[in-house]
Amino acid sequence: MKKIINDPEHVVTESLRGLAAAHADLLRVQYDPDVVIRADAPVAGKVAVISGGGSGHEPLHAGFVGPGMLDAAVPGAVFTSPTPDAVQAAVAATTGEAGALLIVKNYTGDVLNFETAAELAAAEGLEVRSVVIDDDVAVADSTFTAGRRGVGGTVLLEKIAGAAAARGDSLDAVEALAHKVIGQVRSIGVALTAPTVPHVGSPSFDLAEDEIEFGIGIHGEPGRERTKAEPADVLVERMVRAVAEDLPFTRGDRVLLFTNSMGGTPMIELYLAHGIAERLLAEQGITVERRLVGPYITSLEMQGISLTLLKLDDELTELWDAPVHTTALRWRA
Amino acid sequence: MKKIINDPEHVVTESLRGLAAAHADLLRVQYDPDVVIRADAPVAGKVAVISGGGSGHEPLHAGFVGPGMLDAAVPGAVFTSPTPDAVQAAVAATTGEAGALLIVKNYTGDVLNFETAAELAAAEGLEVRSVVIDDDVAVADSTFTAGRRGVGGTVLLEKIAGAAAARGDSLDAVEALAHKVIGQVRSIGVALTAPTVPHVGSPSFDLAEDEIEFGIGIHGEPGRERTKAEPADVLVERMVRAVAEDLPFTRGDRVLLFTNSMGGTPMIELYLAHGIAERLLAEQGITVERRLVGPYITSLEMQGISLTLLKLDDELTELWDAPVHTTALRWRA
Repeated sequence: MKKIINDPEHVVTESLRGLAAAHADLLRVQYDPDVVIRADAPVAGKVAVISGGGSGHEPLHAGFVGPGMLDAAVPGAVFTSPTPDAVQAAVAATTGEAGALLIVKNYTGDVLNFETAAELAAAEGLEVRSVVIDDDVAVADSTFTAGRRGVGGTVLLEKIAGAAAARGDSLDAVEALAHKVIGQVRSIGVALTAPTVPHVGSPSFDLAEDEIEFGIGIHGEPGRERTKAEPADVLVERMVRAVAEDLPFTRGDRVLLFTNSMGGTPMIELYLAHGIAERLLAEQGITVERRLVGPYITSLEMQGISLTLLKLDDELTELWDAPVHTTALRWRA
Repeated sequence: MKKIINDPEHVVTESLRGLAAAHADLLRVQYDPDVVIRADAPVAGKVAVISGGGSGHEPLHAGFVGPGMLDAAVPGAVFTSPTPDAVQAAVAATTGEAGALLIVKNYTGDVLNFETAAELAAAEGLEVRSVVIDDDVAVADSTFTAGRRGVGGTVLLEKIAGAAAARGDSLDAVEALAHKVIGQVRSIGVALTAPTVPHVGSPSFDLAEDEIEFGIGIHGEPGRERTKAEPADVLVERMVRAVAEDLPFTRGDRVLLFTNSMGGTPMIELYLAHGIAERLLAEQGITVERRLVGPYITSLEMQGISLTLLKLDDELTELWDAPVHTTALRWRA
């Protein structure tokens, strides 16, 4: 294993020190337990939106802390759920009378630890609810999951829930919007190479030089099938079909298309894949109204991509377009 | 070779189709020769700022096309200089009476082809000048270069020259500022793995599982030395020293610290390295006033990082902070 790290046990904390130094205008970091908190939290009267999970998927989640998106992110060890006390610390630092919404990707450890934290917060009189996102169409159950995995849709959910909270929506309203997003977002991923977890030291799985894993999870969990590598036109067509047929997305739908790098795939390949997906959706009469292209939910240095489709309506589009100021997403209306 | 591409010969053009589809609000693409042009070009009365070079370093340069930065980017084939007619097409699409500044990284092919294009433009009555950036302290001469290579400083130069042009500076003034930036920016890179050029099909060089290349170029050109992999603390200290001693940067200096991923290095490692560099500079009495952390000048999927330091003064800081709206850099004042 070659990585730019010191002791593998301290990689997350040491990385957070760099994040804090680089972005003191946007966020602060509390250590032990490690939590990334919006610089001006708590924001009076606003529903706090909090997410987290194992590290190694950066910029998810810490890169989305800031006005218009997350109030706090809770980074666990690499590919390891954060502990309940860390989630609780995030709630304590950000949550007032308006309450908090926890956005949880559907992995057994995450669901359990966020639930425990929510119960602890409730015992202290805070209103904390959680929603579980499970947008990955690849498999019904997986290595760390009962039910579908939470993947790329999480980025879109965090943006839209964050925008709803920022405009002053109640906890009921933010939660309802989150469920709406979860109901109409779908994703699929593909891997060309495996990631290496620092404290493990060797690749998470083996892929032959001519093989890909179709339906990969963001921790390298097995997908639908291992196949021979294919030209981009063939591969992206399979990915678009898997996602579109699942909801299904149909002629006349307006969508956000999110083409994501798993970390190690160069931008030149990512945009090439995005262009194919745009063309295929246009051919199906599905209108791509918004786009996101880049490495936003990664699996360390894994080469691969994922495609996420979110069905839009006027309200979701308005919330997507709303101002956001984080290290990874930044725009004004 | 596993890549998400179709025919290796068409990878740049196909990728540009995806870029154009994703960012029609910011840019348009002319094909054959391939040029990326700011959507609202030509901008009346403004000096055009144009850059380009071989593809494979994305988001450099096309990701920096837009208000406040580049008017056009000229992407050659992967790791191959663009042809003079492509540069000429970029000039024709963007340049009026105010003239144009060409920002050229110091590689023999780039310098020659941009010079030829400038001469062709001059013959048509356009005032076109070029500046050559050579900020890499690693080696005196290199595989594709007489003199030092142009690397990470290019991103900072494009931002600052673009901001000067946007505020209405004359060609003389933009050119003078560009020379000032080139005079006080220095970089060094390191590689953990090699990139694979699509039309070559195999890695550009071999590195053992415990080896790194210190002083790597952005096309995988050899650096100062091949050494055993080291802990991040040791590696980043060597990198900071190499850059700081070169100009030199000294106690009391105000700097912009740019910690760049070569493409395949995860954000968790990149921020870890950034944090170490921040600490070392603080210990030396060098004040980090601005930061940029991310994959901005890459070498396909190569794992590695580079560090760039730019000495700041009030004017350069103001130009760095000035509004920019491109796919890769976006902020308001």
